[in-house]
Amino acid sequence: MRSLKPDSVERLLTHLVRLPGVGNRTARALIEHLLTVDATEVEALAAALADLRRTIHLCSQCFLLTQEDPCPVCSDSGRDHGAILVIEEPTTAWAVEETHEYRGLYHALLGHLSPLHGVGPEDLTIDALLARVAAGSVREVILATNPTVEGETTALYIARRLADAGVDISRPASGIPVGGELAAVDRLTLAQALELRRKL
Amino acid sequence: MRSLKPDSVERLLTHLVRLPGVGNRTARALIEHLLTVDATEVEALAAALADLRRTIHLCSQCFLLTQEDPCPVCSDSGRDHGAILVIEEPTTAWAVEETHEYRGLYHALLGHLSPLHGVGPEDLTIDALLARVAAGSVREVILATNPTVEGETTALYIARRLADAGVDISRPASGIPVGGELAAVDRLTLAQALELRRKL
Repeated sequence: MRSLKPDSVERLLTHLVRLPGVGNRTARALIEHLLTVDATEVEALAAALADLRRTIHLCSQCFLLTQEDPCPVCSDSGRDHGAILVIEEPTTAWAVEETHEYRGLYHALLGHLSPLHGVGPEDLTIDALLARVAAGSVREVILATNPTVEGETTALYIARRLADAGVDISRPASGIPVGGELAAVDRLTLAQALELRRKL
Repeated sequence: MRSLKPDSVERLLTHLVRLPGVGNRTARALIEHLLTVDATEVEALAAALADLRRTIHLCSQCFLLTQEDPCPVCSDSGRDHGAILVIEEPTTAWAVEETHEYRGLYHALLGHLSPLHGVGPEDLTIDALLARVAAGSVREVILATNPTVEGETTALYIARRLADAGVDISRPASGIPVGGELAAVDRLTLAQALELRRKL
């Protein structure tokens, strides 16, 4: 029996369900929405999607997402070129930037070490980071990989590789989120928060 | 301070967060995904989106979504043209069709009566439904609006309008979903399931 779904709906459904977190029900709701909103809005979304990969590249120095190369951070002389904040994914920089607390440069590793998944140091941008540090003007490297097993492993590996580079190496504090409740925090975080307790 | 997000990312985020169920975090995850998958997949998604509104229209007879007019259901002489299943949204027909249980025609109301939101009979396709029934070849109308207050009200309203049309009017059974547990069903459904109990 022929499906009632028009071909263009079937085709869009096929692509939508490949998106993370989008199942059949969500895809159907999205299409219902797209069929009822103003057609220009759908065209604008389609155009924005088509533009994304055409315009976005990785900065050749820090691997952040950028339309220019080097990226606006690397080419900003007003920022502190002596500090590098190392992150796993380029998009994490957006969240850091929103804190308005960091004025140095970034370095996106494009992942984390994961021997189980066959991801070794050569699959990340670790060599490029070491080269940036070796170039001499870097004073401090902040290893802001995620507080996961893989993130910790990756941070430790890089710290060891940088041990003789003569730069300060640090890692952001782990602990109870500000505004969070002790009881609501997972066991590992609570344990770490207690172990890293500060004298008042 | 300038945002680190490239313009094309900002633009896409703006459009993504307008989608139902997509907040900032989901939009960011979607963009991360779209930046890592094959570029041709993103282009195909963009093209499918752009195609949607260009190719899809409402059937002039039953208001299902279709690329041709009349739709494949209305123009299918193999289907039972004596039965009309009335639904609120055109896409509901896809789910009905997947049951392989229904071989008649459809009629999408494009919503439900909702005096609070200013939706009256003239805002739905009720007149078109009455005209189809008045044309004479219809034997049965199944009012499959949703089992909500608005859906019930809409069904009752249409039933009253069709009272003298000489057609069978019915409504799908409400009850405990097949495979569901009594304890997991909401109170109203359970009450209705008990009230509508069948003799075995």
